Amino acid sequence: MTKHFKTVGIIGRYGDPGISPTIIEVSEHVQKLGLHVLLDEGTAELVREHKLEVASRQNIGRRCDLVIVVGGDGTLLNAARSLAEYGVSLLGINRGRLGFLTDISPAHIGERLDEILHGKYSSEERLLLRTYIEREGQNISESCAFNDVVVHKWDVARMIEFRTYINDQYVNTMRSDGLIVATPTGSTAYSLSGGGPILHPALQAMVLVPICPHTMSNRPIVVDAASVIRIEVSDRTRSPAQITCDGQINLGLVSGDHIIIRKEEKPVRLIHPLDHNYFDVLRAKLRWSEHPT
Amino acid sequence: MTKHFKTVGIIGRYGDPGISPTIIEVSEHVQKLGLHVLLDEGTAELVREHKLEVASRQNIGRRCDLVIVVGGDGTLLNAARSLAEYGVSLLGINRGRLGFLTDISPAHIGERLDEILHGKYSSEERLLLRTYIEREGQNISESCAFNDVVVHKWDVARMIEFRTYINDQYVNTMRSDGLIVATPTGSTAYSLSGGGPILHPALQAMVLVPICPHTMSNRPIVVDAASVIRIEVSDRTRSPAQITCDGQINLGLVSGDHIIIRKEEKPVRLIHPLDHNYFDVLRAKLRWSEHPT
Amino acid sequence: MTKHFKTVGIIGRYGDPGISPTIIEVSEHVQKLGLHVLLDEGTAELVREHKLEVASRQNIGRRCDLVIVVGGDGTLLNAARSLAEYGVSLLGINRGRLGFLTDISPAHIGERLDEILHGKYSSEERLLLRTYIEREGQNISESCAFNDVVVHKWDVARMIEFRTYINDQYVNTMRSDGLIVATPTGSTAYSLSGGGPILHPALQAMVLVPICPHTMSNRPIVVDAASVIRIEVSDRTRSPAQITCDGQINLGLVSGDHIIIRKEEKPVRLIHPLDHNYFDVLRAKLRWSEHPT
Amino acid sequence: MTKHFKTVGIIGRYGDPGISPTIIEVSEHVQKLGLHVLLDEGTAELVREHKLEVASRQNIGRRCDLVIVVGGDGTLLNAARSLAEYGVSLLGINRGRLGFLTDISPAHIGERLDEILHGKYSSEERLLLRTYIEREGQNISESCAFNDVVVHKWDVARMIEFRTYINDQYVNTMRSDGLIVATPTGSTAYSLSGGGPILHPALQAMVLVPICPHTMSNRPIVVDAASVIRIEVSDRTRSPAQITCDGQINLGLVSGDHIIIRKEEKPVRLIHPLDHNYFDVLRAKLRWSEHPT
Repeated sequence: MTKHFKTVGIIGRYGDPGISPTIIEVSEHVQKLGLHVLLDEGTAELVREHKLEVASRQNIGRRCDLVIVVGGDGTLLNAARSLAEYGVSLLGINRGRLGFLTDISPAHIGERLDEILHGKYSSEERLLLRTYIEREGQNISESCAFNDVVVHKWDVARMIEFRTYINDQYVNTMRSDGLIVATPTGSTAYSLSGGGPILHPALQAMVLVPICPHTMSNRPIVVDAASVIRIEVSDRTRSPAQITCDGQINLGLVSGDHIIIRKEEKPVRLIHPLDHNYFDVLRAKLRWSEHPT
Repeated sequence: MTKHFKTVGIIGRYGDPGISPTIIEVSEHVQKLGLHVLLDEGTAELVREHKLEVASRQNIGRRCDLVIVVGGDGTLLNAARSLAEYGVSLLGINRGRLGFLTDISPAHIGERLDEILHGKYSSEERLLLRTYIEREGQNISESCAFNDVVVHKWDVARMIEFRTYINDQYVNTMRSDGLIVATPTGSTAYSLSGGGPILHPALQAMVLVPICPHTMSNRPIVVDAASVIRIEVSDRTRSPAQITCDGQINLGLVSGDHIIIRKEEKPVRLIHPLDHNYFDVLRAKLRWSEHPT
Repeated sequence: MTKHFKTVGIIGRYGDPGISPTIIEVSEHVQKLGLHVLLDEGTAELVREHKLEVASRQNIGRRCDLVIVVGGDGTLLNAARSLAEYGVSLLGINRGRLGFLTDISPAHIGERLDEILHGKYSSEERLLLRTYIEREGQNISESCAFNDVVVHKWDVARMIEFRTYINDQYVNTMRSDGLIVATPTGSTAYSLSGGGPILHPALQAMVLVPICPHTMSNRPIVVDAASVIRIEVSDRTRSPAQITCDGQINLGLVSGDHIIIRKEEKPVRLIHPLDHNYFDVLRAKLRWSEHPT
Repeated sequence: MTKHFKTVGIIGRYGDPGISPTIIEVSEHVQKLGLHVLLDEGTAELVREHKLEVASRQNIGRRCDLVIVVGGDGTLLNAARSLAEYGVSLLGINRGRLGFLTDISPAHIGERLDEILHGKYSSEERLLLRTYIEREGQNISESCAFNDVVVHKWDVARMIEFRTYINDQYVNTMRSDGLIVATPTGSTAYSLSGGGPILHPALQAMVLVPICPHTMSNRPIVVDAASVIRIEVSDRTRSPAQITCDGQINLGLVSGDHIIIRKEEKPVRLIHPLDHNYFDVLRAKLRWSEHPT
């Protein structure tokens, strides 16, 4: 039917049976247009009485050219990370509340899917980050982030100290509650609470945002997305630190650990309706009124 | 000799034997002026071959009218908390690096002590905070802070949610990394890293500083020192929170806990040389240059 | 009728004939309760066919014990400044949009006035500032501010440089776009845009907020309301500066000018309905949602 | 002698005769290496008894392949703007105080020039901005900026209101003191005072920084350097606004004016010694200590 997508995966919000009706509505709509549907196995457990083919996340990545995500931004972040290596396109349907990434409202599913599956859509590429943790010369952990990598103190009572390098150039030694390294996608999430700027999603860049830095002239730094960031947890750090990716993966750090952050080879490809406008979403989410008074 | 002080306590930085020479120098100077000296029992362990009377912290509080603290601001914070109920005057001698509270340099101990013990000094009163934690109607904990009381998320990956009341008036429900309630003394410590204003030490006020708040219009709020602040950890908080006083006392919080913060009845009395000037210290500590260029 | 107020002045928004119906409604209600009404002469020009006694601002100050202000916060700021010396109570009625100071909605005028004029109200005292400008030892200007005194660069291309003293103690030399000195009332106006904290209206304090300071560690400073602030425009300032009070009075400054700011002897007395709550207004104006999500 | 540069222009700080000795030292050094020197005609007036060929700024642009600038960052900004169309390389020598752009100290002129003129140098390209002002459909002004374009209120007492578009997409309507559009070079100048992030100089981006915005969720936005920014001064703006480029060109704006900002076709090419490191300069200028304590 459409020249673009042939096999469509569906992923729903983790552990939320309330999404079942939307999953069914989406799948029926996609099937009506003659496309094949694969349902994520985690999601399938939540949906009673469906007749869809169930597939592992891995198989969804291998076989689908479009994955429809039903839930909030967190669900889409998760789907994007798990599908990072497959180059699949992603489409986000929210559950009633506009998301930065899940911009299709449940009230317009049919109309929007028709347009998109007939090839009327815009697409954009979004940066992902890959993070390695090196301990005593060994790569002990590797993970993927769509929003941000956060190095944070573990013990509330102490700041942590760390050195930052960009492309092997020494930037500074900082004492703070931590450091956020965010993509443009993540720049409107935790990074914004930490005082970071908004990065337009088309910008090939990352931002480093210090959290409650001891030195007041420490400011967010925006660097090219091709940069390699290295953070060394200082020997002077008495308290252990921890690291999270999109607030989901949590690992303890010890003095001397190196964290290396660079962009993923493959970007995420997001699909939007043709009338989608980033700034419309931004204004709605940040409550910028049309006419400030 | 001096009309003001008769019995002088000496407290040194915890666990730092390097302070011994300064302790000896201070004690000899005080004794030379005919005053009686009591050495804190924790400090006494660090000082070899002294002939001073050793006293518990409690006895120092009861018997001394002046306590000289040798160390950094952290040492003075600790001394102030432990002596809160006794109304003792405190004098801070730093160990080479100017502190906000320990403003006498080791190079000028003799000169400064002569002046002060002969009655040539200024004194100021500083606010302390008392914090109660109520769980299911029971007061489960009580502690004292000179800088700040901090409610902070425990798990790095989640913001906490809490409601704040001032004098039983509902202020707001906030999602953030936490909340700092700081005295004027604490306004130049962690609160400043969190974006809080500087409160002049003579101001009878506290400041509530949100840490990385989700809502960008959440701002520091300064209230009269007579206010009673109540923070209720929300039932919607999935992750436990924790509370610290001056970064030293650490207690886990659960949903539904109430934290009550009010000023201590007795203030801390700080002693300074006559030429002491708060703004001189502030400029030095914040590196404000005389002539910005 | 009520034991509290006998003669009530009415002041409307400057140059806005649209307020006439509200003025008439208010005056009839007050007269019905047997109180005498004086209409501000500037307002009288806007109201057709009234039979009220018209009075100069000065006479309103002298003869009234309550002045009802109809308009926005700007109208109330103006009324408060012009009546500063008379110690009159002020009640603000907004024209449809909640103000920080004009908290009575036009929809509830009758009900609210009944309560208040029968003595059911709360009152609070608010700080005003008096500003003097000294040039070559002469006091060349004197004015009054309810929100803020702002020293600002005149020429967009240059920062200004000035020295600040608090109670004759030197604070710092700053290069910036300017400095805001705000009352608690003004802390939610321009000062907030400049990054200042919120000062609770009951706090006896002023805040000094630097505007775009060159030195990043320059931060808002909160001082006791009894403080005398002196700002000296530096000889190194190549461009002239200017000063405004509540954004209304505008005067050019030259190098060497001294600006002295201290609190007015008499505070403003604001009248509110009994159920008025400062934090309710704050949440509404700053759009703090009840349940952040 | 060197394979890279043949004709070297020299430009000194405007109106500062004190730079003469450095101008002479530089010119003698360059001539010793067999290169031809052209002295800027404005600079020539300040230098007594030189025997150099004097050239207009235009001729320096046409004939030189390297221009050495002696002065501060302001002098280099000016030289870069005036030479924008010629694609000349620029080398900055400061007059004793490290600049972001003038990074060679006068103490090392000989040594540094030897290296650079023998081809031992690094070079980097920096973004310039071109600004057009349209009034009633006519392009009434055009100018160039290396640091920033600033739209600012003219009258201190009023905020201005304007709409911003990026690539013809509506961003927001803002009330504020103004808006800074800065290059990476300008991100450490006025933009930083306004709360903007640091943009690494290699990043192809611009940042839009609101100055004291009325709406607190208005934040700096970083966009790709290929973006076209349009700012429309609102009809609701009662007070005129003004615009400056690098704080030097000043033009009044009226309601309805459109400001269009895009990058210059040709970048500035900056020459540095081989051991130059952007972050070294950043740490020194922002006073980031090696070991915060």
